[in-house]
Parts: sequence; C-alpha cells; structure tokens
Amino acid sequence: MNAAHVTAPRLKRYQALAEDMAGAIRAGRLRPGDRLPSVRHASRARRVSPSTVFQAYYLLEARGLIEVRARSGYYVTRVAAARPRVLEKAAVPRAGSVEVDVRERVFDILAATMRRDVVPLGSAFPSPSLFPLKRLAAAMASTVKRLEPHTAVEYLLQGNRALRHQIGLRYAIDGVDLAEDDIVITNGAMEALNLCLAAVARPGDAVVIESPTFYAALQALQRNGLRAIEAPTHPLEGIELDALETILREQRPRACWLMTNFQNPLGGSMSDAKKRALVALLTRYDTPLIEDDVYAELYFGERRPAPAKAFDDAGIVLHCSSFSKCLAPGYRIGWAAPGRYAQAVARLKLSASLTASIPAEAALATYLAGGGYDRHLRRLRRALQAQCERMLHAIGEHFPQTTRATRPQGGYFVWLDCARGVDAVRVHEQALAQRISVAPGPIFSTGNRFRNCLRLNYGHPWSASIERAVAELGRLVARSGSDRG
Amino acid sequence: MNAAHVTAPRLKRYQALAEDMAGAIRAGRLRPGDRLPSVRHASRARRVSPSTVFQAYYLLEARGLIEVRARSGYYVTRVAAARPRVLEKAAVPRAGSVEVDVRERVFDILAATMRRDVVPLGSAFPSPSLFPLKRLAAAMASTVKRLEPHTAVEYLLQGNRALRHQIGLRYAIDGVDLAEDDIVITNGAMEALNLCLAAVARPGDAVVIESPTFYAALQALQRNGLRAIEAPTHPLEGIELDALETILREQRPRACWLMTNFQNPLGGSMSDAKKRALVALLTRYDTPLIEDDVYAELYFGERRPAPAKAFDDAGIVLHCSSFSKCLAPGYRIGWAAPGRYAQAVARLKLSASLTASIPAEAALATYLAGGGYDRHLRRLRRALQAQCERMLHAIGEHFPQTTRATRPQGGYFVWLDCARGVDAVRVHEQALAQRISVAPGPIFSTGNRFRNCLRLNYGHPWSASIERAVAELGRLVARSGSDRG
Repeated sequence: MNAAHVTAPRLKRYQALAEDMAGAIRAGRLRPGDRLPSVRHASRARRVSPSTVFQAYYLLEARGLIEVRARSGYYVTRVAAARPRVLEKAAVPRAGSVEVDVRERVFDILAATMRRDVVPLGSAFPSPSLFPLKRLAAAMASTVKRLEPHTAVEYLLQGNRALRHQIGLRYAIDGVDLAEDDIVITNGAMEALNLCLAAVARPGDAVVIESPTFYAALQALQRNGLRAIEAPTHPLEGIELDALETILREQRPRACWLMTNFQNPLGGSMSDAKKRALVALLTRYDTPLIEDDVYAELYFGERRPAPAKAFDDAGIVLHCSSFSKCLAPGYRIGWAAPGRYAQAVARLKLSASLTASIPAEAALATYLAGGGYDRHLRRLRRALQAQCERMLHAIGEHFPQTTRATRPQGGYFVWLDCARGVDAVRVHEQALAQRISVAPGPIFSTGNRFRNCLRLNYGHPWSASIERAVAELGRLVARSGSDRG
Repeated sequence: MNAAHVTAPRLKRYQALAEDMAGAIRAGRLRPGDRLPSVRHASRARRVSPSTVFQAYYLLEARGLIEVRARSGYYVTRVAAARPRVLEKAAVPRAGSVEVDVRERVFDILAATMRRDVVPLGSAFPSPSLFPLKRLAAAMASTVKRLEPHTAVEYLLQGNRALRHQIGLRYAIDGVDLAEDDIVITNGAMEALNLCLAAVARPGDAVVIESPTFYAALQALQRNGLRAIEAPTHPLEGIELDALETILREQRPRACWLMTNFQNPLGGSMSDAKKRALVALLTRYDTPLIEDDVYAELYFGERRPAPAKAFDDAGIVLHCSSFSKCLAPGYRIGWAAPGRYAQAVARLKLSASLTASIPAEAALATYLAGGGYDRHLRRLRRALQAQCERMLHAIGEHFPQTTRATRPQGGYFVWLDCARGVDAVRVHEQALAQRISVAPGPIFSTGNRFRNCLRLNYGHPWSASIERAVAELGRLVARSGSDRG
C-alpha cells in the first residue's frame, strides 16, 4: 500500500498562533480584561505577517476568548475565564467482575436523546449539518449508476476492495501497514466491535472496560453473555496501567475493550508512550485489545493521535473505527482491522449480516478517492473546537462552582462531575420536560455509579437555544444539589 | 395502513394456459413427440384469443417443453420427459439436541461458491442481471440528494418510516395487519434472524431447525451458543408436524427456526392449513417461531404463499424477510416483524449495528412507492420458472437414473438426492477444479449427513456453459457413485 500522496494535516500558522494565545488565556497568563498586543506588535514579535495575526485574532474572537473594543484593540473576554474547574482524578470502580444487566431505563434515556424536538445535549451524534452531505450524495449518485452487479457477491466476505484500499492509506499515515485483506468492512463501528468481541470471548468470560465506559459496550457485553471488569480511567489520560496490570494478573480477563483516543464519555486520550506500554502489557498477558477508535479524526491538536494498533507487533489489537462520526453518519460504514483475528471476524460477519450496504461502501470509496476528505475534516475539527470552547464557557458561567469538567482535546463530549448530592437521572428527567436532553452518568457504568455526572454533547453549532439549555441545566443541577445537600 | 391500491398479482390468461399444458406434460398426459393442438383449435377449445395461445406456446417453447417443426406445428420435446425422479421422502435425523460446530471446511466451501470465475451452481444468490439495477440506481440518485440530514438519528431504532409503510402494505396483501412500529428494518434478513434468535433464546437453549437446513442457521446457532434439534422435513411439504410435536413435548426447545415457503435447500412449502396447524401447535407450547421467509415473492404458482405469520394471533411468530433475493441484493435491507418481541428486537439491533444504511433504506422506499416492483417481480418469477424447467431437464438428461430431485414451486434451488455411494464433498472438489461450484449436502446439517446430496442454483439465465456444467456434474456424480458402489 502506498502512502506517498497522503500527508498528515498540520496546523496553519495562524491556527498555531491562536492555539498558543488560547493556551496563555487558559493558563491564566492572559486574564480577563487584559489587552492583547497590537497586530503590528504581535506580527513583529512572532515573525509572522500581520494578516496571520488578524486571522488568529479572528479565530480567538469566534471562540469567544477575545473581543474587539472600537478604537482600542483586542481584549480577553470575561467569559474566557468562566471555565469550570478541571476534573482530573479517576473514579475508583469496585473490584471484581460483574454480570452486565442494562436496565430498561437506559433504553428509555437513549430513546429520549434521539427525539427530534429536544435540544440534543444528550445526543451521541454531532450535528448532521457539519457533514458534506451534498458531496456525498453526488458521489453516491455517480457511483451507483456504474456499480458492477457482481460486486454484491464478490465483496461479501470483507467488503468493497477500493474502500479497503482507501482505509489502508489512512492507516499508513500512522505508520500502520495493512494489506487490504487485513480490513473487514462492517455495518458501522458498532458491528465491528460486536464481531471482534465474539471473535475473542465466549459467554461467561470477563472483559475489562473503562470506568466510566461507553454504554454500548455494556449492551454488547450483556448480549454476548460476558462479565465486565471496570478499570479506573483518568479523565485526561485514559485507563490506569497499574490497575490494569493488577486486573490482568489477578482476574485473567479474556480481553480489553478500550477507547484510546477521546474516550466516550470522558474525552481523554492516552499518550503514545502509554499506548505502547499498554500494548506491551497486554502482549505479555496474551490478552487481545478491542480498540474502539471512532473519534481519532476529531483531534484539536496538531495531528491525529496514533491508535494503540500502531504499536502492535503481535497482532493482538483489533482496531475498530467508522465514518459515522466524521463523514457520513447515516451510511453505516465502519471497519475492523482485527490483527490475527481477521479471518475469524470476517467469518462471524458472514453469519451476522453478510456484508454492509454495497452502494454505501462504493460511494464512500468514490468520495475518498476524490480527495476532499481532509479539507472536510479540517473544517469539522475547527467547528468542533470552537463549539467546545463555547460549551466550556457556558458551563463555567451557568453551572455551580462545585462542578468539575473534563478538557476535551478532541471529539464532541464533555463530562461533568457535579456536587455529590446531584441526581443526574433526575436532572435528565427534569430537563427532558423542558425539551433538553442530557446523558446522565449512571448509563456509563454497571450498577448505579456516576450518579452526579453528566455527559454533554457540543457537536452542534452554537446557538441561543443551546446557550439557554446549558443555563437551564446549570439551574437544575444547582437545585438538585441543594435538594440533597 | 391502507392496502387499497395494492392488488395481488395474478397469472395472465396466456400464463395460465401455459401452466395448464406444462402440467399435462409433467403428468405424462402429453408425451415427447406428441403434437399439440393447432392454435386455431386450441383457441376455440379454450375460449381464448389466438394470440393468447401463441403467447402460451411461446412461453412453453422458451422453457424447452415444446418445439416448432416447420409447416407441421408444435410438438412436445424429448427433453420435456427427461426429468429426474421426484424426491418425496423426508430424511430421518438423529434424535436429541446437539451442540453446533460449523467446521472450517464449510467456510472454504462457501468462499468457493462466491468466486467470480466459476459457473455458480453452488451460489446462494440469483444472477444480479435479473434485478432492476438501473431503476434502483435512479431511485438512489434522486433520493440521496433530498435526504433529510436528521433522519440518520431519527430512524436509528426501527429504520426509515416510509419503507416500513411500504413493507406493511405488502403484509396487508396476505391479510397481515401490521403497524409501522411492528416492523424493524435490519441489515438484510440475516441480521433480522440473528436478532430474533437473540431475543428469544439464551446460550445453552435448544432450537428446532429443519433437516436439511440453511447453513447460515447453523452458524447463527453456533454463534449464539445454542443447541440444535433437527426435525424431519418433507421435500415438498415442509417440516413434519407429528415429529415436531414429539420434540416440543419431550425436549421443550426454546424456539423454532423454519422456512415455511420454498425452503432452502429443499424448495418445499407448507400449505396454508399446515401453517395454521403449525402456529396453533407452537402457541400451545408457547414456543416462538422464527420464520425465515426470504423467498416468498419468488413463487411459480398463482399467488404468493402466505407466511405462518398470517395465522399468528398470539404474537409468537417473528417473521423475517428482505429485498436481497427479489429486488436489491447488495443493498442489504431486510426486516423483522417480531410480534410480541418487537421492542426486544429493536433494542438488540441498536446495540448490534444501530441501523441499516439510511440511503439504501430511503432508495428502496422511493423505488417501492414508484410502483414498478410488481412488474419486476412478475418478470423475475417467469425467468426463474423457465430456468427451473431447464435445470430439471438438464438433470434428467445428464445425471444417473438413480438421482432424485425436488420439484421447486418457487425460489431458485433444486435439491438432489444421489445414489448412496456418491460423495458430494468430493464432487464439489472435483467440480471446483473445473470451475464449477456446487453446494454439497453436508453443509446443510450438523454432523456429516446428506453426504450424497447436492443443492443446485438455477437462478442464472440458462446458457451453454451452465448446460455443460450440469452435464459435467452428472458425470462426476456417476463416477463418484461407481467408485464407492
């Protein structure tokens, strides 16, 4: 596979400058009311053109971090300081493995987050308006007319070859060298994860998951008759390796299911070094890693974080991803790169659903070969990052001081740890009565943990109605806390 | 749901006449070499127009049953008599339930049937050339451009509403009255069947299947950790109810998984009376029926056979079907009408793959609303029926006299029961070496039964290469039989 014409996207000069200044504001070196250097001054000091400075200031203004005052200059806004406290401690889950029993309530909560008539702070999806739907439609229309009839049968086992080629090219960016036969196309990442789970574990086995974890992992474990071992997970840096090693040594789980990048719901990512250590540890214990990596393209930093798969020599990492969060939500095209389990996964897929939708696969292959994907992703990431800033400000303004929030470096979720007495499920119900959805903490865990936590989605273009919804949530949280406290 | 504008397709006059005469040929009342009545004579005797007689004769000629001799008239062909003996006895499976263990070999065999470079007599699919791919592409192109972005989320749980409406209209033809919420759209029938299985059975449970059965049922049972009870199944009339009742009474299986219409691989169908009795029996034992009904639209008779679902008052029938065999193989759109298990199936689907491909669902809804579906189906059925006749003749001509064959009344499979010594897996291997695929009996059963049986696909337009392939298969079967015998 040839990666020659794929280049890792980089921050433009003005973006780097804006990042730098945003960092200074976050760190408190620039405080609300402080005046920024003039454009001319900054241009000389930073050795960039005045237009680069203008662009950077424009970006910071769009994020609400600075404001222009007429005939005076740029100032750090009041709202820039209105950020919630950082959540930076992992919760300690109970020890041992438990049977998974996802209750009715969870499905009702999920159904509520899908309602069309609510402000979708509880949604698991970003706004469809952020995706290049017109270009995708054009790719679909042109592709479907020249689809070779025979492909329906030919691609049954692993899916459209051209699409697997395109996916392989993107792995090559991270230095992961995959042949087309190492990739199995699936009905979204969810099917990929289910198939990988079925390939490595049998009913009754225990699987390590994060705490808190993506609720669909709990559903998948339950469906497959698997037990869950929850491992402490740092809000910024991912699963704690010492704790994981203890679990591996003492409980001999059959597999791990982790999100290494922009974990849902916490938003944290493991560093490259930590990923390398993770894979080494799991290799030592001969324990496969199911790596759910659907948010990797949505990074706010300079480059896409590598998957743990990049450090996998033994073939124990079953890497799963999809186009659902970053390109084409409704097409339902995902994939697995299951390492040494590739054949097992392909076979399970045959008996699960045969193949994904052939026109959808082919249309995405056409779109990706067309070359607009990276441009779209840059735009998408900028939008999400700006919305993230807005969301953090709004939380800082409207939630009680006791609220701690994660600091997402990608994706579109922020996780809130509210005061101890807050009842997130109650807040969810009260918010829903006002047509605001929110994802309450308990759905991200076995048992009834994270009762005072909420996951908020900032994947929708900022608007007055979102601002009002966050303010209302802040009021509900304050009231819930004082009811109990 | 309103079925007013849906009419049950009926045989045209000329088709009915052709059917009648084909029946006379099959029954031996008209024999090879017999001269048919002249067009004028038949027109008067049957009280139809001469052009109707012409069309009927044309159809019989296309099926190879009659031939024109210049200046003389129409004669029954020699080949019309060359039909294999009828298989009309059910095999007796071993008693008790067994663990399902689909072996490596089965996957290799299935992979071989998907090769592009073979004559696809072992294929599970009809020829893509029989489908209205251009009209589907046009429906897709027009639909995808006006897809509402929000539908990706809105239809997560059960799938596109317009498509569920269209599917409901077709149920109404059979007098099955379903609301849109009674239908769950899935990634093909295969996913529907898997979800239904997961909704009614837990690992370790036993499920009744037919003998022989569709191999994917075995794979699904294995994946779900279920045991299989094989029930004797008549080649023409389906599962034997007395034997089933004994199983229900003595072994208390958790569910049945049956194909009531044009069963794969036998091709037999249960009568309406038998379906009614089946549902009554299962209701008495409170045992859900997973009804795999993907071939129903491919009937050769006057009307579509009803599903067992049509006789289900208690909601115990989980009816599964798809568009993959009759309209759009690669779109991977199927559905379940799971009766009282509808909510459970919808939820399992959410954690299995969320939803099927949104553009594919919407395109099919557009196509179905457009109204060409029944016209396409009539053409498809005529083609399959003609190919079936050809295949039976070719088998009669080229296979040993000892071979017994089913008499399909729909679908595109014929099942051959060869002489006792014939080794079907060996025949499969030898045929593959000559680029001919065939589905050997043992893959349709647990254990290694049906060793002397073959399933042939007649879903491809008849051609010299297919004729040659059948002749070659006949030689291989004859040789295999004499090797052992």
